[in-house]
Amino acid sequence: MVIPKYLRIKNDLKQQILNGKFEYGDLFYSESELEKKYQVSSITVIRSIKELVKEGYLVRYQGKGTFVSRSRKQRPVRLTDIEVFTGSYDHDNVKVLSIVKGNNSEILEEMGLTPHDSYYEFIRLREVADIPFMLHYSYIPARFVRGDLNDKERFTSIYKRLVEDFGIHLFDEPFTEVDEIVAPSLPEVTNLLHVDNNQPVVKQTKKTFLSGEDNAVAEYVIAYKKWGFFKIKYSTIDA
Amino acid sequence: MVIPKYLRIKNDLKQQILNGKFEYGDLFYSESELEKKYQVSSITVIRSIKELVKEGYLVRYQGKGTFVSRSRKQRPVRLTDIEVFTGSYDHDNVKVLSIVKGNNSEILEEMGLTPHDSYYEFIRLREVADIPFMLHYSYIPARFVRGDLNDKERFTSIYKRLVEDFGIHLFDEPFTEVDEIVAPSLPEVTNLLHVDNNQPVVKQTKKTFLSGEDNAVAEYVIAYKKWGFFKIKYSTIDA
Repeated sequence: MVIPKYLRIKNDLKQQILNGKFEYGDLFYSESELEKKYQVSSITVIRSIKELVKEGYLVRYQGKGTFVSRSRKQRPVRLTDIEVFTGSYDHDNVKVLSIVKGNNSEILEEMGLTPHDSYYEFIRLREVADIPFMLHYSYIPARFVRGDLNDKERFTSIYKRLVEDFGIHLFDEPFTEVDEIVAPSLPEVTNLLHVDNNQPVVKQTKKTFLSGEDNAVAEYVIAYKKWGFFKIKYSTIDA
Repeated sequence: MVIPKYLRIKNDLKQQILNGKFEYGDLFYSESELEKKYQVSSITVIRSIKELVKEGYLVRYQGKGTFVSRSRKQRPVRLTDIEVFTGSYDHDNVKVLSIVKGNNSEILEEMGLTPHDSYYEFIRLREVADIPFMLHYSYIPARFVRGDLNDKERFTSIYKRLVEDFGIHLFDEPFTEVDEIVAPSLPEVTNLLHVDNNQPVVKQTKKTFLSGEDNAVAEYVIAYKKWGFFKIKYSTIDA
C-alpha cells in the first residue's frame, strides 16, 4: 500500500506537533518552508496543511499565517465523572422504555455493520429521586443480544447483560466519546427529560469497541443528560 | 505520622475499586463483612464508607445496600478539545479587559498563597469573527507577573508571558480542571458574552501547578464559555 505524499507529510507534521516541537499558539512552518523541507509542490503542502486545520491541530488566520492550535489535542488525563447527586443517598433508577430491532443504514454504518446485519435499540431513562436526568439510546449488534426481550427488567443494565450473557466487560474495553451541548434536541428527548424544547441538553455520543474482536463496535450510545447533572473533572496523569 | 485506621481502610478499599476488583454497579462489602475483614468497630467502617461515598466511588441506596459507582473515576483517556469554528479561517482574537492586583482571601486560599501574598487578576475576552465566546478570569501569583501592566497587549497570551519572562511552560505542567454547566452566571459574564441572564454557560475551573516548585499554583483560571462552543472528545489511551 502506497501512502500518498500529502498524507505522509501530514502525519509527520502532526507527530511534530504532538511531540511538543511547537508551543501552543506558535507560528507554524510557512508553505515555502515546507515545500523546501519535503521537496514537494505547493499543492501537496497546502493539502497537508488543510487536513491538519480540519483536524484542529493548526489554525489559519488570513493575512497572519498558520499557527499551532491552542486547543488540547490527545492530552493524556484521568477523567472522573462527578455525580452532582453523590452522597444524597437517593436511588439512581433505570427504566427500560423500549427494545426494538432495527436496521437503519446510518446506525449500521456508525457501528461498522453491513446492510445485512441488524441491531437492537434500547431506550432507557435514568432517574434519581424520581427526577429523570438522562436518556440513553443504546445500539447493540443483534449477535450480542440474547434472551427474552419482553422481560425488559433484564436489560436495565446493558453492562451486566453483556458480562453475564457473553463474558464481555464493556467498561474495560476501548471507547471514544464526544460530549457537546445541543439545543434544540429531539421532542422525544425534551419530553422524556421534562425540559423545555429550547433548553440546552448535554449530548454524549460514545462507541465501545471489542479489543479482542478487531475492534468491532459492541455498543453505540447516544445519551442526553440534563445540563445540571453534567460535571466532569480531568487531571494530568501522575504528573 | 500515624495514619488513622478509617483512612487506611478507606485507601485500601479505594485501591480495590480502582484496580477493578469490583464491576461498576456491583454490590459492595457489607458493613459487617468489613468489620470482620479489618477487625475494627462499625464506627470506623462507617466512616471509611462515608468518605468513599463523598468521593463518589460508592453509592448507598436506602434499604438496598452500598454499591460501586457507575461513574468513571480516574479513567485514563486522551482528551481533545474540538473547536467548533475550526477550519472557518476566522480570527480567534483575545482582548485583555483588565489587569488588577488583588488579595481576596478565597482566591489566595485556592492558590495556596498566604494572606500576605498577592496575585494579579487578568480578565480576558476571546472572540472569533467578532463574536465573544469565552471569558477568562486568570489569577497569577504576583511573583510571576513582570513588566508594564499598562501595556495590556503584552498579556494577551498569559502562556507566552510565562515562557518569555520566567521560562515556565504552562501547558507542560500538571493541572486539574472541572467543567460544569451553570445558570445563572454573574451578570458581568452574561453581559460580556452577550447571552441572556438565564442561559446556561460552561464554567471551566482550572489550576496549573509547577512540578518543579513543589506544585505551587502558577495559574488559577475560572473561564466561562458559550455552550455552543463547547465540544470535547475522550478516547482510551492506546487500548
